[in-house]
Amino acid sequence: MGNVLWHITMSLDGFIAGRDDAMDWIFRYPGPNPDVDNVLANLGAILAGRRSYEVGRKPGQSPAASRPYGGAWEGPVFVLTHKIPDEPDPSVQFLTGDIRSAVATAQEAAGDRTVVLFGATVARNCLEAGLVDEVLVHVAPVLLGAGVRLFEAELAAPIELQAAGVLRVGQLTNLRFRVRRPTPPPAG
Amino acid sequence: MGNVLWHITMSLDGFIAGRDDAMDWIFRYPGPNPDVDNVLANLGAILAGRRSYEVGRKPGQSPAASRPYGGAWEGPVFVLTHKIPDEPDPSVQFLTGDIRSAVATAQEAAGDRTVVLFGATVARNCLEAGLVDEVLVHVAPVLLGAGVRLFEAELAAPIELQAAGVLRVGQLTNLRFRVRRPTPPPAG
Repeated sequence: MGNVLWHITMSLDGFIAGRDDAMDWIFRYPGPNPDVDNVLANLGAILAGRRSYEVGRKPGQSPAASRPYGGAWEGPVFVLTHKIPDEPDPSVQFLTGDIRSAVATAQEAAGDRTVVLFGATVARNCLEAGLVDEVLVHVAPVLLGAGVRLFEAELAAPIELQAAGVLRVGQLTNLRFRVRRPTPPPAG
Repeated sequence: MGNVLWHITMSLDGFIAGRDDAMDWIFRYPGPNPDVDNVLANLGAILAGRRSYEVGRKPGQSPAASRPYGGAWEGPVFVLTHKIPDEPDPSVQFLTGDIRSAVATAQEAAGDRTVVLFGATVARNCLEAGLVDEVLVHVAPVLLGAGVRLFEAELAAPIELQAAGVLRVGQLTNLRFRVRRPTPPPAG
């Protein structure tokens, strides 16, 4: 089974979208990024939340924001939602189950490749269920000061990470972490 | 006149304190840090907000949290507050003016050395007044998920930074930025 990776770009003050879900600020930091290339090289499926999906489809959103990885990914994209939209969209597969079955479905599609999570709510639910292996964050050099926070809702408990790598690429800083799993109780 | 530096440790999800202002999580990442040594070597004065000051004095707070830089700094510490507390504290100087005069007072005390800002509100007010030159953030490998956010209140407008350095030190990642000043309107 492949890894589950939460992949996100955030402002230094922890916003993942600006006011009115604005994502255009992200595209001010273009250019090749070895960590993104590495994600794409190992990608097997994307699991997105409904909000991430809708934000990508908003009128006026830049075309690059409307497709995962600016169109560089053409494999399976799953969207977890409470209610499947009436308007069909052949570019994605909607899922309505719980977070564990959504991840299982994405992992089945991905085989031994990576499942990438898009969106704060999906990521939080996966983190709290112990389903995330890795986090890749691109920190953008801006204090947005308003918008959509990485976590709008509280976590039940802190989640410990292990720093796994840092790389400055132009104005972005890539931070890689592994998620620390709670130590299982001793057997016996 | 020396630089004004906002120096802060935050969780990856942008919290500067945990639930109930808990700061002990910060002390889980001890050890020498070249960027902190560099701050101390150039430090001239600290300007803190009232909340940062009170958090350091909370009963049960670890002794290291009660003194700036764990006691390594014995120079001037200014605390900006609306109302000077009744209980005297010879270790700090209380200021009640506006943010500009507070920074000017700290800079006068610092001479050509750096004024370090502690606390989110003081930092936000200074950022919005265009008074901050540099930001040094230590990103801790944890998602706190609750507590005191880097910015509780919204910024009037995004503040652009310029990435100036990145250094991984043990489990912490030091991110250094310069604050981009708005381009002045053309003369004439």
